[in-house]
Amino acid sequence: MELPTLTLGQYSLVYNMLSLAIAAMVASFAFFTMARSQVSARFRPALVMSSLVVGIAGYHYFRIFESWGHAYALQNGAYVPTGMPFNDGYRYVDWLLTVPLLVAELVAVLQLPKAVRGSITARLIIATVLMLVAGYVGEVSGDMGTRNIWGIISSVPFAYILYVLFVELKRAAERETGDVKYKLLMTQLLLIGTWGFYPITYGIPVWFGADFLGATGIVAVQVGYSIADIAAKCGYGLMIYSIARTKMEADGEVAANTAAPVAAE
Amino acid sequence: MELPTLTLGQYSLVYNMLSLAIAAMVASFAFFTMARSQVSARFRPALVMSSLVVGIAGYHYFRIFESWGHAYALQNGAYVPTGMPFNDGYRYVDWLLTVPLLVAELVAVLQLPKAVRGSITARLIIATVLMLVAGYVGEVSGDMGTRNIWGIISSVPFAYILYVLFVELKRAAERETGDVKYKLLMTQLLLIGTWGFYPITYGIPVWFGADFLGATGIVAVQVGYSIADIAAKCGYGLMIYSIARTKMEADGEVAANTAAPVAAE
Repeated sequence: MELPTLTLGQYSLVYNMLSLAIAAMVASFAFFTMARSQVSARFRPALVMSSLVVGIAGYHYFRIFESWGHAYALQNGAYVPTGMPFNDGYRYVDWLLTVPLLVAELVAVLQLPKAVRGSITARLIIATVLMLVAGYVGEVSGDMGTRNIWGIISSVPFAYILYVLFVELKRAAERETGDVKYKLLMTQLLLIGTWGFYPITYGIPVWFGADFLGATGIVAVQVGYSIADIAAKCGYGLMIYSIARTKMEADGEVAANTAAPVAAE
Repeated sequence: MELPTLTLGQYSLVYNMLSLAIAAMVASFAFFTMARSQVSARFRPALVMSSLVVGIAGYHYFRIFESWGHAYALQNGAYVPTGMPFNDGYRYVDWLLTVPLLVAELVAVLQLPKAVRGSITARLIIATVLMLVAGYVGEVSGDMGTRNIWGIISSVPFAYILYVLFVELKRAAERETGDVKYKLLMTQLLLIGTWGFYPITYGIPVWFGADFLGATGIVAVQVGYSIADIAAKCGYGLMIYSIARTKMEADGEVAANTAAPVAAE
């Protein structure tokens, strides 16, 4: 895809949003790592997974930021493409690692019965890999027909993942009361609200034509992806931390009860 | 070996896979380091070794990534070799450190009787060094006859290592029941599935001629090595963590029970 020339304001908006994403991911990594000692043993795996997700995303945002910087040069007051490609592939690589972790994280905090947990996690992770590989093939194809076909193929596992998570969140919410129930329902909304953004963005060139993505389009996609990623990774991790704390309160657990020496870190 | 000219898609696929490997190794390092507090004292050495393996590999993938970036330059829409060599030697250096650790890690988690443990570890580590030194000599020779001879020499300790690990895994599986048995048998499969990739890749130029490795060949080898390394290091480490947790559950152990001061990290 040819990059369009950008105004100073357009270029800087993307640049600053990418930098914001780096800061948000790194800060969230520090938070989730420290917050492990605030939850009881049964919720610690979910916190570890939150740390990994934002740590991996922080690395990739750093790479995307560098790639953005190399793709443009300032000339006569406008940002002109240098010819170096802007590598959006980092996003797919990031999702390949973080989406299975996000899925496993949610399954971990739902505290499903052990008999079903392994099978649900395995099915969701396989669906995630299928979704992302199909998406990558379509994204790099450069041909709208091919992009369309792979997009449709990718949507099948995507819909499956959302459906399973949605149903399991609903079931989990039905088992709970009060604040825990409320937060599980909010997680459903967060999931739909943030994940919904990705297929819409993927589809824009197919529905409106590749030229629709002029300067405004490119800026909108990068800003949109950054906001969606911050919400889907940092926000989602905070939500899961909050569910864990609320469940602990409801069950009268304290972090230190379970394993005093470990929690003392 | 002369590098072929690559299309944008071919170059980017390798570039993104190498970046994926960096992210996977670094994230696994964070995970294994944090997960130490989730296992009892007897399994902690295995977790420490897992951390070291993926930490070392993360460093080398960073170097390989940089080397790949310097070996090619974008010219008229294609990636053309710059004349800077692409250093595959990093892989051998990496294996020289990580393969003995992987072997020791597996021996540690098998919980062999103390009398045989030291002797098995020593024999396997010597075999590993012989295998890798012979492989390296063949790899850098540039002559197919020499490559072939050193490849055959290298295969002898390779077969020995696989045989010993296979037999010990089988014996360990026979001593166990249920989930632990199942996971030990899965580790056997993972071992064959991932390690088998390396000699096949080494042999390609010998069997099909050096020119067989055109653009597609180079891309396939780099993508294949990256996937095999992620599976053999991160995947294997996760498997070993999972075996440790399952054994702890089966034996009614908890992480904090065993060694309070260590767990207080």
